[in-house]
Amino acid sequence: MSRVKPLPESAERVFKGVIFEIWQWKQQMFDGTIETFERAKRADTTVVIATMDGKIVLQVQEQPDSTAPFPCMPGGRFNEGEEPLACAKRELLEETGFASDDWVLWKEYRPAEKIEWIVHAFVARDCKKVAEPHLDAGEKVSISLIDFDEFLALSDNPAFGSTEITAELLRARLHPEKRDALHALIFGSR
Amino acid sequence: MSRVKPLPESAERVFKGVIFEIWQWKQQMFDGTIETFERAKRADTTVVIATMDGKIVLQVQEQPDSTAPFPCMPGGRFNEGEEPLACAKRELLEETGFASDDWVLWKEYRPAEKIEWIVHAFVARDCKKVAEPHLDAGEKVSISLIDFDEFLALSDNPAFGSTEITAELLRARLHPEKRDALHALIFGSR
Repeated sequence: MSRVKPLPESAERVFKGVIFEIWQWKQQMFDGTIETFERAKRADTTVVIATMDGKIVLQVQEQPDSTAPFPCMPGGRFNEGEEPLACAKRELLEETGFASDDWVLWKEYRPAEKIEWIVHAFVARDCKKVAEPHLDAGEKVSISLIDFDEFLALSDNPAFGSTEITAELLRARLHPEKRDALHALIFGSR
Repeated sequence: MSRVKPLPESAERVFKGVIFEIWQWKQQMFDGTIETFERAKRADTTVVIATMDGKIVLQVQEQPDSTAPFPCMPGGRFNEGEEPLACAKRELLEETGFASDDWVLWKEYRPAEKIEWIVHAFVARDCKKVAEPHLDAGEKVSISLIDFDEFLALSDNPAFGSTEITAELLRARLHPEKRDALHALIFGSR
């Protein structure tokens, strides 16, 4: 999955902030010299492709530091010690009030080489509304339902916020067999 | 270009490392409460699409913390105070020994919302070899020339290292008018 080795055991955390940590280690170079290497580390995140009544759940979200409302999938950051699926279920419930008993992991991405950060993309099939949304003070969210073609077309929308899945959506548009596989994954084969 | 506002003037740098800085500020939330917001900041980088004899220059690069050699475009990190084009010219020369007198900016990307980091993608047409490569101690690079279709096909290669341009390559494969525009940009309209 990754082009870079895991953080070496000798790596030390030199900073811990609200979101980011910074880790450094001494790396032997190809000529034998030693340099300080550095990576950032941040809480992993989830992206959720949730379905309801044969459609896909899209959010339009606004955050205090965003320039304008933008379309994106439900999801968010891991809480301390949280497992990927637990985070995905919690974020979907908080942001939409929806729950599913049919979850499947779609993909795991590492968006940037120099950052220890995994994006876990899940599918949540056949959601039911079980609660009212319970938003953070830093979120304004509205929900709509879109069809599969509208979902794929988000990959050409420069405002689309879930950029981690953009390339995979483009590949599904480009390759019919990937499109069919993604459709089957999202809507099940029942 | 960006879905997030610039760093506010009140933001303070709380850490400075080898690559990353961390900045924090007090952000008023939608309900009036105040929270500490945080972003990382790192040196901007360049990606260079260099042509020679009607082909495109591809590197296979290995770094001390990479798991295996991987294909990527020439390019790299800004030096302190360096301008985008100057960085692109320096990196192309160091990694390949090539120079061009016909440069054009293709795209600027911001790969991650919470990181102040711009990727500047340039085209360098009709390169000439003017020197031997001069590699960092942390680089092993071999060079080959590929055609336009091979270049676009890198967007399906999971090992491709210049992931910042992957979505744009996929869009060029998907939309004939984007494909023609990119071809004209890279090879000129002479």
